[in-house]
Amino acid sequence: MRFETARPFWRRSTVGRLLALLMLAVIGAVVNAQTVDPLPSWQDTAAKANIVAFVKAVTEPGGKDFVLAFALDRVKALAPQHPEWKNQQPFKAVLEGDMKALAETGEHGLLELVMATHAGNTSEEFARIVRDWVSTARHPKLGRPYTELVFQPMLELLAYLRANGFKTYIVSGGGIEFLRVVAEELYGVPPEQVIGSSVKTKYEVRDGEPAIVRLPEIDFIDDKAGKPVGIHKFIGKRPIMAAGNSDGDFQMLEWTTSAPGVRLGLIVHHDDAEREFAYDRKSAFGKLGRGLDEGPKRGWTIVSMKNDWRAVYPVVKR
Amino acid sequence: MRFETARPFWRRSTVGRLLALLMLAVIGAVVNAQTVDPLPSWQDTAAKANIVAFVKAVTEPGGKDFVLAFALDRVKALAPQHPEWKNQQPFKAVLEGDMKALAETGEHGLLELVMATHAGNTSEEFARIVRDWVSTARHPKLGRPYTELVFQPMLELLAYLRANGFKTYIVSGGGIEFLRVVAEELYGVPPEQVIGSSVKTKYEVRDGEPAIVRLPEIDFIDDKAGKPVGIHKFIGKRPIMAAGNSDGDFQMLEWTTSAPGVRLGLIVHHDDAEREFAYDRKSAFGKLGRGLDEGPKRGWTIVSMKNDWRAVYPVVKR
Repeated sequence: MRFETARPFWRRSTVGRLLALLMLAVIGAVVNAQTVDPLPSWQDTAAKANIVAFVKAVTEPGGKDFVLAFALDRVKALAPQHPEWKNQQPFKAVLEGDMKALAETGEHGLLELVMATHAGNTSEEFARIVRDWVSTARHPKLGRPYTELVFQPMLELLAYLRANGFKTYIVSGGGIEFLRVVAEELYGVPPEQVIGSSVKTKYEVRDGEPAIVRLPEIDFIDDKAGKPVGIHKFIGKRPIMAAGNSDGDFQMLEWTTSAPGVRLGLIVHHDDAEREFAYDRKSAFGKLGRGLDEGPKRGWTIVSMKNDWRAVYPVVKR
Repeated sequence: MRFETARPFWRRSTVGRLLALLMLAVIGAVVNAQTVDPLPSWQDTAAKANIVAFVKAVTEPGGKDFVLAFALDRVKALAPQHPEWKNQQPFKAVLEGDMKALAETGEHGLLELVMATHAGNTSEEFARIVRDWVSTARHPKLGRPYTELVFQPMLELLAYLRANGFKTYIVSGGGIEFLRVVAEELYGVPPEQVIGSSVKTKYEVRDGEPAIVRLPEIDFIDDKAGKPVGIHKFIGKRPIMAAGNSDGDFQMLEWTTSAPGVRLGLIVHHDDAEREFAYDRKSAFGKLGRGLDEGPKRGWTIVSMKNDWRAVYPVVKR
């Protein structure tokens, strides 16, 4: 693991996490041979060969997790209505830009953030807020809209799989109602093929108008052992391929690749400090250790962003 | 409403409920004109005209709820392992065939049945039990396999809608893992397009083999106000058409038809004592009252099985 030691902590791990891949699981099985290179941004390494071999014999996926960046911006936008946040963690840390203190509030602190920033509205209002944010927000370091920070090799992989009859899903720890707003445009994945963490909702008729109202209560955490549970709940089938980039994906990969038949497990390793970020075992968010240790023994393909990808981001014409 | 007064209570309402339509919601919008009659089992009445007009200007569905019959058979199969059930409701009522006593245990009693008969196994074991049951069980009155008791007019409606670019879903109060085993073969609806009530599950590695284990705890009740909540959770879109057959579908129909644009709400009224069953306001299961009262004012189409359908069941060649 390499750290960019000249950068403050939050640019190293929090934002590294923001740029992390979404976890994607893919089901389906139709296979065709292809003559043109369907994965031009991938180096001709073992990772690419494993993918092509898998698709030829019988996932995945691309994306990016900007859920946390959204939550941070929402805390700032809602702060005037919540004077108490100035002295209350995890809000205090967000308002003071103290990402180290935020990390110390742990998973519980992050959940509190998500609750405070994702609940209360109707689902339609929430979707509008997300759309507005996505259309204006920019990555603090890279200065580009988040919509341009998708991984080109993963977009190619999604297209390649769909062209071969696969049905592609996003399976993320991020909020499902957040991701559904952007997944179709960014990854070609429609709302009904997005699985994520959720708050409880209730149906309510307000002034004669029915609405789905978001409640400040966790319904489901789509992470770790929750990922196979979420896939089973939403899809009702076991995937034949899954890709992830952290130990939060371990159980999904384990479940996917333990079934009989040809299966593919893929872990994208963020080891490219030049073009993206480099982090793994010691990262506060998006930690990847067990996957690196056990993955190869289980036959999973470890994708090195540095060595396996020719390009990281799409070329955007302006 | 007509009752078949010569028949005992349970043949009137419980089994009537077994034959009830699944609630189905459909999303999508592609439209083509068709010249051949796509709905030959429907009489040329207003109901059919409304459907065709809707599809031509911009859902739905057919099915049958044999979840309860499965639960009753499972109680009998599991009874030797549960001697305490002889003196404990709702199990006592099931073992004694006393459907009146069962109905008196109410919704809570039915949920207990579902918990006791649907939990404990892994999802794969449960699916095998369902498949075995479906392949051998027969309707106690009609003497035919449940798989033949689907509604031909609803199969035609599903096919018609899909031919016009609609994506068809089953949205049922029944158990999701039960329905997913049969929905594709019976209705052409794949597992990922089935929404239903569910128990909680957990991911577990048993002797090195990962499994989804079913827990004796309700996760979600897909009925009444739960239906729009379930549709929103699983699909993330508001349907443009929905069909139901009881007041458990009221909120789904309300939510679907309240959005701007061309929408269609359909209620199938079980008013055909000759060919199927006749029940509505006073039925202990599958009660339909509010829908009949308010539906027409809201522009919903009430489908009379008696008057609007030429045929009820498919013709099966043996």
